[in-house]
Amino acid sequence: MRDVAERAGVGLGTVSRVVNGSGAVREETATRVLAAIEAIGFQRNEIARSLRPGQHSHTFGLLLGDLTNPFYASLAKAAVEVAGREGYAVLLSTADEDPQVERRAIGNLIGRRVAGLIIVPDQGDHSYLEHLNAHDRVPLVFVDRPATGTDADVVLFDNEGGARRATQHLIEQGHRRIAILVAPSYYTTGRRLRGYRRALREAGIPVDERLVVTLNRGSAEDAASATRELLTAAEPPTAVFATTSFLTEGVLRATQQLRERVGLVGFDDFRFADLMPTPVTVVAADTEELGRHAARLLLDRIHGESGPPRRTVLPVHLIVRGSGENRQGRGTARR
Amino acid sequence: MRDVAERAGVGLGTVSRVVNGSGAVREETATRVLAAIEAIGFQRNEIARSLRPGQHSHTFGLLLGDLTNPFYASLAKAAVEVAGREGYAVLLSTADEDPQVERRAIGNLIGRRVAGLIIVPDQGDHSYLEHLNAHDRVPLVFVDRPATGTDADVVLFDNEGGARRATQHLIEQGHRRIAILVAPSYYTTGRRLRGYRRALREAGIPVDERLVVTLNRGSAEDAASATRELLTAAEPPTAVFATTSFLTEGVLRATQQLRERVGLVGFDDFRFADLMPTPVTVVAADTEELGRHAARLLLDRIHGESGPPRRTVLPVHLIVRGSGENRQGRGTARR
Repeated sequence: MRDVAERAGVGLGTVSRVVNGSGAVREETATRVLAAIEAIGFQRNEIARSLRPGQHSHTFGLLLGDLTNPFYASLAKAAVEVAGREGYAVLLSTADEDPQVERRAIGNLIGRRVAGLIIVPDQGDHSYLEHLNAHDRVPLVFVDRPATGTDADVVLFDNEGGARRATQHLIEQGHRRIAILVAPSYYTTGRRLRGYRRALREAGIPVDERLVVTLNRGSAEDAASATRELLTAAEPPTAVFATTSFLTEGVLRATQQLRERVGLVGFDDFRFADLMPTPVTVVAADTEELGRHAARLLLDRIHGESGPPRRTVLPVHLIVRGSGENRQGRGTARR
Repeated sequence: MRDVAERAGVGLGTVSRVVNGSGAVREETATRVLAAIEAIGFQRNEIARSLRPGQHSHTFGLLLGDLTNPFYASLAKAAVEVAGREGYAVLLSTADEDPQVERRAIGNLIGRRVAGLIIVPDQGDHSYLEHLNAHDRVPLVFVDRPATGTDADVVLFDNEGGARRATQHLIEQGHRRIAILVAPSYYTTGRRLRGYRRALREAGIPVDERLVVTLNRGSAEDAASATRELLTAAEPPTAVFATTSFLTEGVLRATQQLRERVGLVGFDDFRFADLMPTPVTVVAADTEELGRHAARLLLDRIHGESGPPRRTVLPVHLIVRGSGENRQGRGTARR
């Protein structure tokens, strides 16, 4: 580092600021320092450091689903930002609900000597991690869902509370026949189903199991066809609670196609929700905060925190935009 | 590798398939192989390999803007997929149009011994890369925009052609007063402005420079306030060409607020475009293909391709959904 400072004609503090990305350095100076680093080959230290015993790569791994899902994109954005501020780089890997792909990706990331791992786990058993990670004990943080079969820090949303609030809102608007669309056997939507059942029970409304629809896939297409079936059945619902934003999209597609109006609350806010023909009421969750919190927990562990696994539940809140309203007579007008 | 195969009780081919992620391996077998790898510490080879002369880390860097912009998310998704299939991991870094942050991020990625770099460059001068990368000669691929001051492979969209087509469509619908919203001095929107001017010239329509609006920032908010100004001016346009999807969002917000209808074509498709009160006509570009193509060019270079820099221009196409239509008398009815 002294060589770099000398060659660039700056102080050690300046080199350190450039390398760590902390504090303000004039552009021209930063470029000179970076060129000196390059010329001298100081950068090799990054890797050399990762080989020294007790040290690691100043890189952490992030394993999540399809980035074109805005939920994962926000998570990744926040984690990369927190990592960058602490001088960490992020190795990105995607698994998308395939257990075999997930195992391989985790093995691959550990093999690259990451200092820690943030994982959005699939719904399968994760006890294999106890073996896979037995030697290195790489700190893990699970996000959005806990992993079964292993224990580590986890950051979740208040799925049950948010779903209860969504359903209560529809009940307050006068709805009694409220359908729920559930994506297949995910932890989060399972909890959301619990919140729905609880709100109905608390309001003294019996659950009509024909209105509880578990989809084969969590896609907008599957949600659209389930909505079409619901709305053309003998006793259609007057409202739908869609447990993810893809399912909300499907409900909107089906109702627009059928020119039907149905009360709607979606879990997760989305861009353009307020610009829809009927602005969409949602349960909003701060996904970037989820990512930031997970990254901070992981950095704690990397820095030596050794307490028992921590479980953080982040609050969610209802944004009322109008789509939950009950249009009097709609249900009867159809028949 | 032989040790791993022995310990896991499988053939060498199976170990290879698990490590490289190629071919089908039963879950249970894969787990056994991964556990054996862990136990033996075979993974250290990943890093050892990156230190051997002439070898590299089997990692490439991806430097782009804010991941909550679906454009960058699609790019990242595609690059990670191509990388994964070839046994590469992706180090993700974001710079978001700040030249100093960009330089530091590139220096940092090169310092981590990436095998190559995919960069969405900002609009500044990139000649510093000649110094920064002088020693390692890490292959670079620029994506979405070329970088000034240095030369490397680049993958672009046909911005000018797409913008010309968008403007032609509005002219075909009978519009003559067509405004354009341009994000500040980006390469892409500059080319789109050229396409707009060209289409008007070809149709014999003089450009009214009051209808060419360059925004201070490329945000939906700035586009909304520019649209409000345009529509409340003495001679309002009957149509707007929005050169990015954020700007399209801004036009939609302003027209909904003012309860005005204006012809609209946006550059870049977006989720929910077809569900808007008036479905939005767009110039659609395949961003995932952009990312895949960039990753393939980079892997070519990593594998030794040494020809002159290549420039690929990917086609775009118009999706007509109705928002470009001219509502007769609208312009005059207002005055």
